[in-house]
Amino acid sequence: MTLDQARALDAADPLAFARARFALPEGIIYLDGNSLGALPLATPASVATTVEEQWGGDLITSWNKHKWIDAPFRLGARLAPIVGAGEDELLVADSTSVNLFKLLAAALEARPGRRVILSEEGNFPTDLYVAQGLAHMIAGAELRTVPAERIGEAMDDETAVLMLTHVDYRSGRKHDMAALTALAHSAGALALWDLSHSAGAMAVDLAGSRADLAVGCGYKYLNGGPGAPAFLFVASQLQGQLRNPLSGWMGDQAPFAFEPTYRPRDGIGRFLTGTPSVIALAALEAGLSTFDGVDIDAVEAKARSLSEHFISSVEARCPQLALASPRDPAQRGSHVVFAHPNAHAVMQALIEGGVIGDFRAPDLVRFGFAPLYNSHEDAWRASQLLGDLLDSGEWDQPRFHARMAVT
Amino acid sequence: MTLDQARALDAADPLAFARARFALPEGIIYLDGNSLGALPLATPASVATTVEEQWGGDLITSWNKHKWIDAPFRLGARLAPIVGAGEDELLVADSTSVNLFKLLAAALEARPGRRVILSEEGNFPTDLYVAQGLAHMIAGAELRTVPAERIGEAMDDETAVLMLTHVDYRSGRKHDMAALTALAHSAGALALWDLSHSAGAMAVDLAGSRADLAVGCGYKYLNGGPGAPAFLFVASQLQGQLRNPLSGWMGDQAPFAFEPTYRPRDGIGRFLTGTPSVIALAALEAGLSTFDGVDIDAVEAKARSLSEHFISSVEARCPQLALASPRDPAQRGSHVVFAHPNAHAVMQALIEGGVIGDFRAPDLVRFGFAPLYNSHEDAWRASQLLGDLLDSGEWDQPRFHARMAVT
Repeated sequence: MTLDQARALDAADPLAFARARFALPEGIIYLDGNSLGALPLATPASVATTVEEQWGGDLITSWNKHKWIDAPFRLGARLAPIVGAGEDELLVADSTSVNLFKLLAAALEARPGRRVILSEEGNFPTDLYVAQGLAHMIAGAELRTVPAERIGEAMDDETAVLMLTHVDYRSGRKHDMAALTALAHSAGALALWDLSHSAGAMAVDLAGSRADLAVGCGYKYLNGGPGAPAFLFVASQLQGQLRNPLSGWMGDQAPFAFEPTYRPRDGIGRFLTGTPSVIALAALEAGLSTFDGVDIDAVEAKARSLSEHFISSVEARCPQLALASPRDPAQRGSHVVFAHPNAHAVMQALIEGGVIGDFRAPDLVRFGFAPLYNSHEDAWRASQLLGDLLDSGEWDQPRFHARMAVT
Repeated sequence: MTLDQARALDAADPLAFARARFALPEGIIYLDGNSLGALPLATPASVATTVEEQWGGDLITSWNKHKWIDAPFRLGARLAPIVGAGEDELLVADSTSVNLFKLLAAALEARPGRRVILSEEGNFPTDLYVAQGLAHMIAGAELRTVPAERIGEAMDDETAVLMLTHVDYRSGRKHDMAALTALAHSAGALALWDLSHSAGAMAVDLAGSRADLAVGCGYKYLNGGPGAPAFLFVASQLQGQLRNPLSGWMGDQAPFAFEPTYRPRDGIGRFLTGTPSVIALAALEAGLSTFDGVDIDAVEAKARSLSEHFISSVEARCPQLALASPRDPAQRGSHVVFAHPNAHAVMQALIEGGVIGDFRAPDLVRFGFAPLYNSHEDAWRASQLLGDLLDSGEWDQPRFHARMAVT
């Protein structure tokens, strides 16, 4: 690929208009939207209005006047087309970890006599950690992890729920959600999908895949801001059967009746727990607005085009790197990783040079492509800078080797 | 009390300077800081800096560069003098409901052979609901509620944890934290305090009371904004013994090592779960800054003075109302309630008249006094408008009877 070819692809990009919805810093190529989405231009005003006019001006009356109380549902409905769900099947609440706990506990209880949460080795740590914590609480419960290729044989009549991440945070490998959900169902288990690394970058189809449960992150491709509220999905036919173990007042039928005994709401609302941050929800609502008028199939097509062109450019320019993501684009999400023995230092040097990706231990440099704001030119330029750094050896300096709290 | 007397008290108020730290709307007397604290003047800039400069400008690198990763600890340390705790005993995270679940589950596990969460009838609903949800999960566990005066006799060798709210959300009645904690300890139980209605309005003394565990709300007297992150407290000597059931990655020793097995942090950090909203934390940090240089004993003294003067003014001016809070100020927090058969309509009419309090079902009008920004003149004016409304019967109009989602 050449710069001219990259620019020609960008000129023909049906999503090119969306880049203008973001405040991208000058001189930076940002390829880490899979960790923290870029700032939407709409967000500062949305947050300021919520803080200054609503909170400051209307105070407590804003819960009704500005419909703060409906925000978890309103944002869920707005997210529905992005993940292929019904509007009444999604909620925005809490963190991904907390939502995982709710849904895993509900799934174990809904499959009495089955005691196993089945997952894959190498799943995102918080998914495994939350399942470990839950298994510790429930007598007999167990988290069982197997390599991805052994999921089928590991599923048995002890399996209550199959918990998988749609797109692997490290390799970018994408699971076949429909096929694995069908496998879980054939074994009598529920299927729970973590969409953190796919929602907003892929054509996720929860309904078409017949997924039972899902969670995901608001701060990656959904552009909701650092630590944005997360989401959860419960297929409508299951909602009445599942119990939220974190039964806080917002999940009650009538929180302001102040009754002594919890009565779960009908529908998805029973998966609410405490009072949500309205300011954080305002930021996420602005993040979701970056998808207005965006065709999610076009998002997936662009994700594939960006990552394909990045891989070919890097492989042409950087013989020092080895692709560690699946080569088949049908088996990948929207980020790619390459292995290098000094991946940490290489990434720090690259960041200093103006291309922001990230490092994943022990030896991977990771690059995420956000279809709404990244371009083929971004991918091309990043590959060239990476090649320059590797050829020059400039990355091998003490300051690039120093580890920080967050990598 | 007369207006002149109220003004004289305000002129002598050692906390009068703090009112200038808030953006209070013109023409409104705000007596609902116990539901949602007023907007601090520092908040818009704190939030805008976090959103625009940090997130927008420095993107993912802000986790290190702007120390986002430390915020739950930094805010906990800032809260410590307000609630009488050590700096390493507090965390800001999640919602009050979620934090309650963590600490109740940890307490049950730390007292094997004891299966009862003891609480009081009429405790805030989410406290009871969360305990009910937890009891449903743990074989044999039970939430037992008794009237406040029977807590002593109800405590026995089955009691794992006594869960009480320091100041009752409805009546404003304040428990003797030290005495009830000692009672719990003498029965071999842990004591967990919900400080939602006292932190920031009273001289809470967790260390002096030898409390084991506590939770509380960031959006009331701490002025953190709607749905602000909550806090949790674990006494330092207990931290190593307690397990957080919501074992998400932020509670792990090394979240960015991406190890497959959860290893809880030493210390209070093990009670973190998922990624926190950095924007919501920025707002809460500005809220906590309203306590800079504020003596917490002066806060309690002013709370008492405001509520005492309000009660006497209302009782002099409004014979239609009956005090439903304890008359003894030593047994009250910083809000007071009066009963009226048409409390809902009376409060709606009062709000339309510019005095914001709230209604608590079935028959209470509630008024909270935030010592940092309310004045004796506020209390006096509110009592006079209330009297005018009750005398005129203007509250008895259809629009004031209509119920809203949030009351």
